Amino acid sequence: MRNFRQVAVVGVTGYTGLELARILLGHPALQPPLFYVRETNGAKCLAELFPQFRGWGEAPLRPLSVDAITSSSAGAAFLATPHEVSAELAPALLKAGLRVVDLSGAFRFREAETFTTWYKLAAPHAEWLTEAVYGIPELYSSEIAKARLVANPGCYATSVILGLRPLTQAGWIAPGTGVVCDCKSGASGAGKDPRRDLHFVEVDGNFKAYGLFSHRHTPEILEHTGLGESQVVFSTHLLPLARGILSTIYVTLGEPQTAAEVESLYRRFYAGRRMVRIWPADTLPELQHVAHTNFCDIGFALDKSGRRLVIVSCLDNLGKGAAGQAVQNFNHMLGIEEQTSLQ
Amino acid sequence: MRNFRQVAVVGVTGYTGLELARILLGHPALQPPLFYVRETNGAKCLAELFPQFRGWGEAPLRPLSVDAITSSSAGAAFLATPHEVSAELAPALLKAGLRVVDLSGAFRFREAETFTTWYKLAAPHAEWLTEAVYGIPELYSSEIAKARLVANPGCYATSVILGLRPLTQAGWIAPGTGVVCDCKSGASGAGKDPRRDLHFVEVDGNFKAYGLFSHRHTPEILEHTGLGESQVVFSTHLLPLARGILSTIYVTLGEPQTAAEVESLYRRFYAGRRMVRIWPADTLPELQHVAHTNFCDIGFALDKSGRRLVIVSCLDNLGKGAAGQAVQNFNHMLGIEEQTSLQ
Amino acid sequence: MRNFRQVAVVGVTGYTGLELARILLGHPALQPPLFYVRETNGAKCLAELFPQFRGWGEAPLRPLSVDAITSSSAGAAFLATPHEVSAELAPALLKAGLRVVDLSGAFRFREAETFTTWYKLAAPHAEWLTEAVYGIPELYSSEIAKARLVANPGCYATSVILGLRPLTQAGWIAPGTGVVCDCKSGASGAGKDPRRDLHFVEVDGNFKAYGLFSHRHTPEILEHTGLGESQVVFSTHLLPLARGILSTIYVTLGEPQTAAEVESLYRRFYAGRRMVRIWPADTLPELQHVAHTNFCDIGFALDKSGRRLVIVSCLDNLGKGAAGQAVQNFNHMLGIEEQTSLQ
Amino acid sequence: MRNFRQVAVVGVTGYTGLELARILLGHPALQPPLFYVRETNGAKCLAELFPQFRGWGEAPLRPLSVDAITSSSAGAAFLATPHEVSAELAPALLKAGLRVVDLSGAFRFREAETFTTWYKLAAPHAEWLTEAVYGIPELYSSEIAKARLVANPGCYATSVILGLRPLTQAGWIAPGTGVVCDCKSGASGAGKDPRRDLHFVEVDGNFKAYGLFSHRHTPEILEHTGLGESQVVFSTHLLPLARGILSTIYVTLGEPQTAAEVESLYRRFYAGRRMVRIWPADTLPELQHVAHTNFCDIGFALDKSGRRLVIVSCLDNLGKGAAGQAVQNFNHMLGIEEQTSLQ
Repeated sequence: MRNFRQVAVVGVTGYTGLELARILLGHPALQPPLFYVRETNGAKCLAELFPQFRGWGEAPLRPLSVDAITSSSAGAAFLATPHEVSAELAPALLKAGLRVVDLSGAFRFREAETFTTWYKLAAPHAEWLTEAVYGIPELYSSEIAKARLVANPGCYATSVILGLRPLTQAGWIAPGTGVVCDCKSGASGAGKDPRRDLHFVEVDGNFKAYGLFSHRHTPEILEHTGLGESQVVFSTHLLPLARGILSTIYVTLGEPQTAAEVESLYRRFYAGRRMVRIWPADTLPELQHVAHTNFCDIGFALDKSGRRLVIVSCLDNLGKGAAGQAVQNFNHMLGIEEQTSLQ
Repeated sequence: MRNFRQVAVVGVTGYTGLELARILLGHPALQPPLFYVRETNGAKCLAELFPQFRGWGEAPLRPLSVDAITSSSAGAAFLATPHEVSAELAPALLKAGLRVVDLSGAFRFREAETFTTWYKLAAPHAEWLTEAVYGIPELYSSEIAKARLVANPGCYATSVILGLRPLTQAGWIAPGTGVVCDCKSGASGAGKDPRRDLHFVEVDGNFKAYGLFSHRHTPEILEHTGLGESQVVFSTHLLPLARGILSTIYVTLGEPQTAAEVESLYRRFYAGRRMVRIWPADTLPELQHVAHTNFCDIGFALDKSGRRLVIVSCLDNLGKGAAGQAVQNFNHMLGIEEQTSLQ
Repeated sequence: MRNFRQVAVVGVTGYTGLELARILLGHPALQPPLFYVRETNGAKCLAELFPQFRGWGEAPLRPLSVDAITSSSAGAAFLATPHEVSAELAPALLKAGLRVVDLSGAFRFREAETFTTWYKLAAPHAEWLTEAVYGIPELYSSEIAKARLVANPGCYATSVILGLRPLTQAGWIAPGTGVVCDCKSGASGAGKDPRRDLHFVEVDGNFKAYGLFSHRHTPEILEHTGLGESQVVFSTHLLPLARGILSTIYVTLGEPQTAAEVESLYRRFYAGRRMVRIWPADTLPELQHVAHTNFCDIGFALDKSGRRLVIVSCLDNLGKGAAGQAVQNFNHMLGIEEQTSLQ
Repeated sequence: MRNFRQVAVVGVTGYTGLELARILLGHPALQPPLFYVRETNGAKCLAELFPQFRGWGEAPLRPLSVDAITSSSAGAAFLATPHEVSAELAPALLKAGLRVVDLSGAFRFREAETFTTWYKLAAPHAEWLTEAVYGIPELYSSEIAKARLVANPGCYATSVILGLRPLTQAGWIAPGTGVVCDCKSGASGAGKDPRRDLHFVEVDGNFKAYGLFSHRHTPEILEHTGLGESQVVFSTHLLPLARGILSTIYVTLGEPQTAAEVESLYRRFYAGRRMVRIWPADTLPELQHVAHTNFCDIGFALDKSGRRLVIVSCLDNLGKGAAGQAVQNFNHMLGIEEQTSLQ
């Protein structure tokens, strides 16, 4: 019998896995998770990998195998694994009756071709792509609650989609006008593997753009805002800080609006959604207020014409941008309050 | 007799003044500068104010007065003073025969109203506004060479104007399309005075937008690109680093271009201009490569349609964005190589 | 009737107050705290002061007065107030039957003269000094449990005393040899008020020593290690980071020891103390593993002679060094598990 | 004929090589240097390796071979190569008549055994070890001026030796008392190769000790202060900043001294030495004042007994701690002012 209070966590060696472990170890509705890793480098427990867990997260590390997971009582699995690993692992676990929250890009698109084009990898079988639910609870909570497979979104994509969706759904953006998404992320978003361009000396005191017109989170943004590829410019930059994404989004409105109307649109759209916080007109969110949280904070500025609108959307790339949102999704799957273990 | 190899430097207590002192103390064509300050806080020489000058910049600090400067042999003055101080001081020095490079906003606009509207201060007398030359040598070097009064541009404005001018001058931007200038600056651009929001703990690990639709550098950008106010959105952000501005500029071209054509446009426009460096197509500049220099580095990315263009322009806000450019301007006024003391 | 599950928190405008609010708002054994401030600057609730509390810490701010607190049902108060404010406030609250955890220096010494000498302020009345219990639970938990007034220790002092006490209590330090405590702290330890030397540009990329032979935490260290003033050199340095203190402590042992014996001494001394973590021989703790926690991590290195020992002790200056330890003390006063709300 | 104004620079791919290139390209007494690299990764000129050189340091990169260097006209070579490469390369170049400044550890010790013990590598032939001059110009300028082979010191060692030497040479340290050298360095000192522990996320906001009782710079410190191994504890820490070393050094004086006497001792010792700056009593140097310079700044604090003295010595690990000092040494070898190209 599958036990949904018993979760397997696969891939806890990176920054997302670390954050996932931190949240799940303190989750009041769950049993201590089972942690699986592909390579242990000799570490036998989580605290050996991440010394911050000493004294409270001495959970054993288990060598990853499909059999090991499916023969456990685990009723669900979080996959913090590379795209190609998730693409193989998720179907095997699903067939064995587990529910899966996958944090890779493997199941984020309905069309296999989208994945293949942007990721240069073979896509999972189409049946899984159509079954997977895109995991932004503020947009798709009822589907997520019933899902067997949730595709946890990209960090940049989450911040942009949450920032744009009230406007696109209301049809406020002037047809034919471009939408510019200028996004900035901290260095933990690039992963934990040593790389020359992530050396402290190369990032500290530095700032740069990268991935122009080629970032993999682009198709997620298009699919969940309904905007066309020719309408959106999405750029990414590397900030000299560890955690956080701030997206500055520029749109032109079809009809002039007041600041009060804009604020009201966002408040209505996210009414009852505790993990999205709307900032009052004339104030703007900052990364420091969302770091180490699962919040997405959204503010805006409107010019005097009432038609040029700048949206500022920010979140913690490891929180609401990855591990936090994965747990928020799972809380919906469990039918418990979505912010459980996330404050 | 005025001696143009003897310069007065007014206001050396801030970060721009410090950088100006550093450059001018090592300037091979100049005598040791005369440093004037409004308040010494007891410091008698530059090294007491800035210990980094010990052993090589023990220059005395003199109390500021118009008489003290005009009765010296100084042939020119750099004013690193607040707008309202410059507005009074510059005319007095000009009347006494000195040439002036002013680093404040006081003389940057032809129309007094522009200054008054954006700075909420009384403008200098109109005769000086029309006489002042806007100090971007890559655009106005012959006027600068002859100028009695140079208005040194704003740091953000320099990065945006240098990034956009080749396009606007060539008429490449599609009429009626918006131009987004998403700019990010280090904390030294906000000045040296203690402020709650510049406390280390408030800036480190943080990132935020500010000054949307209200930044004072806006009118400079409009005036020197020829773009209309309704066409440009200019935003500013605070980076957790000390020095540097990076502007990401989004434009739509009227006709499709190739990357080679874009690169060529920029190379031709800045041919012979050593302080602007054009990056090859498919590479982008980074702040670390311009920090502590007088360079403005410009790169770009073009989408596959050939019409959506992103320009990345970066510089050191204290170098090419302030003190460095002031000295570059002065080198033109002296008729010597513009990069003297700037490498 | 005083209700010990209802606490008053005085002074929540600084970094320590912010951390205290964060911990107490999530404390499962407490009712929502009553927050008092001396000046509100117009803020009506905690979230207006610290936007990170939006959506979960909208607690009202109350103007501070002794009457307001004593006429509430609060059974205990945390004072995150300046020394001179605490010196007046604590006695008034104690007389009204509240128990008090004071985070200032006012009640840390038995002798009024010590306070007056190091703080240049009038000391509280002697009766309170003798009644106050010094709040390091790892050393004085039974006294703390019964205390009416707990003097929460200085951040540097906590890290040094926890690092040295096993050695001094065991009599292992060679008589007549000096003890060097080289301590480094992040900038949040210097408080939130704007200061020129705490401007981002002055701290980022910088490092310096300060307070040599004059730091106010010196007498706490002497009193709780039993070492003489002539035996200890205690230095402090400012790190370019927000949170954390790391103390490197150099001692000479009277008798040669093995690394296993040193580790064993520390493990036995802190047996059952969950908030102090001893690192295995040949490994050393790092600030990143204690930031945002209430842990004090201690490691060491021993030279081949077995007599020269270096202790590394680190903690979060706002956690175990201030607000976290205050709550840990209060948990002892409540008779509940000391780590409640601290993980 | 060897041309001493023509230098070869070997190994310009790391941070020290970059700094060396920067200084030598602007050196007024030298011809453009010849740059040799072991692996070019396809880069044909310095600016391709380090984009900051674009437009002013387009010097070609040459594949390294002994023949290539010895058949050039170069009269001297700087070796910024690993110990084992320098150990082979230097003798070959010396035999061909070049003078050599080696920045590795290969030639820093008179005894081959010292090198072998601490570096776990075969030492160069003894004849070269005895010929090599240890390159601290403030101590050994006349030997350096005549030297064929200069062993440029370690960065930590330079800061500690310059801080201690006035005291040890004057015999002021109380016999039998320990000397504690608590040293902190920025991350560029650890080299440019990607390493997990140098990832931005692992260094930013973090601080830690490392290399206790085992750091390779230990024997340099002992040899050039004359202190015994049992007398000195030397510890190293990693700061979250790019450039700079600050050493806090604790000594006990044999006789009580006044602050004026201590200051006077240091001023007399370094009289005429422009690259060492002594700070007045009661003031302490900071890393920000030496970053990007060739200065070593030294300050101190003395306790009221006049016998416990804390020395603070700081420098830029790439400047006075490596490339800057290498050029300072070479200036002595050329017989020109030692600070040439270093201000």
